Amino acid sequence: MEAIRWRDNALYLLDQTRLPAEERWLKYTDYRQVARAIETMVVRGAPAIGVTAGYAMALAAREIGDHPDFLDAMVKAKELLAATRPTAVNLFWALERMERCWRTHGAGLPRLEAEARAIHQEDIRMNQDMGRAGAELVPQGARILTHCNAGALATGGYGTALGVIRAAHSQGKVSMVYADETRPLLQGARLTAYELARDQIPVTLICDNMAGALMAQGKVDLVVVGCDRMAANGDFANKIGTYSLAVLAKHHGIPFYTALPSSTIDLSLPDGGQIPVEERAGEEISSFAGARTGPGGVPTWNPAFDVTPHQLLTAVITERGVLRPPFAQGLSKFLT
Amino acid sequence: MEAIRWRDNALYLLDQTRLPAEERWLKYTDYRQVARAIETMVVRGAPAIGVTAGYAMALAAREIGDHPDFLDAMVKAKELLAATRPTAVNLFWALERMERCWRTHGAGLPRLEAEARAIHQEDIRMNQDMGRAGAELVPQGARILTHCNAGALATGGYGTALGVIRAAHSQGKVSMVYADETRPLLQGARLTAYELARDQIPVTLICDNMAGALMAQGKVDLVVVGCDRMAANGDFANKIGTYSLAVLAKHHGIPFYTALPSSTIDLSLPDGGQIPVEERAGEEISSFAGARTGPGGVPTWNPAFDVTPHQLLTAVITERGVLRPPFAQGLSKFLT
Repeated sequence: MEAIRWRDNALYLLDQTRLPAEERWLKYTDYRQVARAIETMVVRGAPAIGVTAGYAMALAAREIGDHPDFLDAMVKAKELLAATRPTAVNLFWALERMERCWRTHGAGLPRLEAEARAIHQEDIRMNQDMGRAGAELVPQGARILTHCNAGALATGGYGTALGVIRAAHSQGKVSMVYADETRPLLQGARLTAYELARDQIPVTLICDNMAGALMAQGKVDLVVVGCDRMAANGDFANKIGTYSLAVLAKHHGIPFYTALPSSTIDLSLPDGGQIPVEERAGEEISSFAGARTGPGGVPTWNPAFDVTPHQLLTAVITERGVLRPPFAQGLSKFLT
Repeated sequence: MEAIRWRDNALYLLDQTRLPAEERWLKYTDYRQVARAIETMVVRGAPAIGVTAGYAMALAAREIGDHPDFLDAMVKAKELLAATRPTAVNLFWALERMERCWRTHGAGLPRLEAEARAIHQEDIRMNQDMGRAGAELVPQGARILTHCNAGALATGGYGTALGVIRAAHSQGKVSMVYADETRPLLQGARLTAYELARDQIPVTLICDNMAGALMAQGKVDLVVVGCDRMAANGDFANKIGTYSLAVLAKHHGIPFYTALPSSTIDLSLPDGGQIPVEERAGEEISSFAGARTGPGGVPTWNPAFDVTPHQLLTAVITERGVLRPPFAQGLSKFLT
């Protein structure tokens, strides 16, 4: 299962706004259209956004070509892409990495394409490594709760939280995955349930507000989620609802993990209070599939993410292994 | 605002499955159709179900008439109504009360109609009384979170949790009500936001999974919800998601209240473990307004209620005043 392909100098994205009803691939050769695809969530998930931004810069380089204004034009393209979504740090990480490449090697297109492909391939490899590391935390017969989609669809492939679940499942350890539907955009229902069912991993779909009752009934052995940005102290932003799950897990004594590649760590922020949290249009809450879900004109509050303090985290699963508290030391060592 | 009317020997229900898109009143003269209306949630909310069941028994008495099998036929009608929804105890309470009436007074229709009307009028009066009592718990400028719909639409009129909010608002104390949308059937979005906006009470609609982030930002001063059944020790069943809110409120040191009339208290159950919790069709989760929200064939878990242990309750708001812990004593005194 994959959601991002690079073929014959074009980027192809599996349109995640249409899943699971329709598996439609869209072709992109204009980086501006790719920026729009990130904004409208044709592609979503922190690592996948990073991979996509890498390819978008390769498309920009192809369009701008060997031109006296190459550097200026590339910076403008980068800024357009950087303005799409504020929370996931992988976007900025990938854009910086591409910029280092074009500043070092100039307009050499094969080199930029190779860098974008490298970001993509490394992401998949990191996911597989964190899957192996995280699977060791999963007990035999585990019933695992996850939120949103941190799967193959959210990454270069394989997945972060779902990568851990995939690896544990391949070891015969997973008896059930509970997928929060994840309002308002239902990535848990539309993407996670779809992705797991396709891989024949047992999955049960619940509404977000059922997670507490499920835990109270003793039906959850661990929670694992993805991550959009982790600050230096281990506080982390992830899909709205993650924080509530972390509090609920704490109350029930259930281990709570996040799985992330190093590209998601932002040591420039001392704690989670500095992570910018995107607020999206209220229409996402007040209508669905063309039908109104709430009365017209009623105000809404629609943050796309929340920040979970590191105190609620049992461990952080990365491509280099499992980090335990205190996270600040582990994270800074990890990136140096 | 009201959702139940009795006019010219017929019951009229405001179809709550169509709100807020359409305000459609349905007329009932057959108690079997009323049973179906309760099952399909044309009418919902524990007190409203009780009021409706009272009128349904009056319709049954009219149909059965002065007949040798009157008592048997009435018991059968009662059983049909009792089988509609298992959790809200007001249904059984109202049916028992009507049965006492027909066993005492026989097939006398005016008497049964009067009893059903009395249940209805008493419910409204109890709501107003608990509104007054609960408003004293609301601080000036309060930002209040509520879940599902415990309003005029869920009761004979005025509301339990929303009755408290209405009373506090009339005293100028409410600066904002946050309404959880309440998946899967969106009673918070469709009914609470609609009901409050109609009464010009300030309301902001959020998804269920945003409540924790809202509390973490210090934007919630208290939580007040309704109740479908309270056991003798104060444990109580309410709409799924209530338990998660109670845990979140505890974690954030936010007062957590439930408002209920005495008809919602079931002293026959020592604790919440014995409250039957209805599970409804998975289709409520996996589709909305004819559109699929999840992939076909994926299993779901869809409990309509959860049980909140009394330890998470700050106080219980009733028509006779506010009960503080220990609840067991207060509740048993209350009903005797």
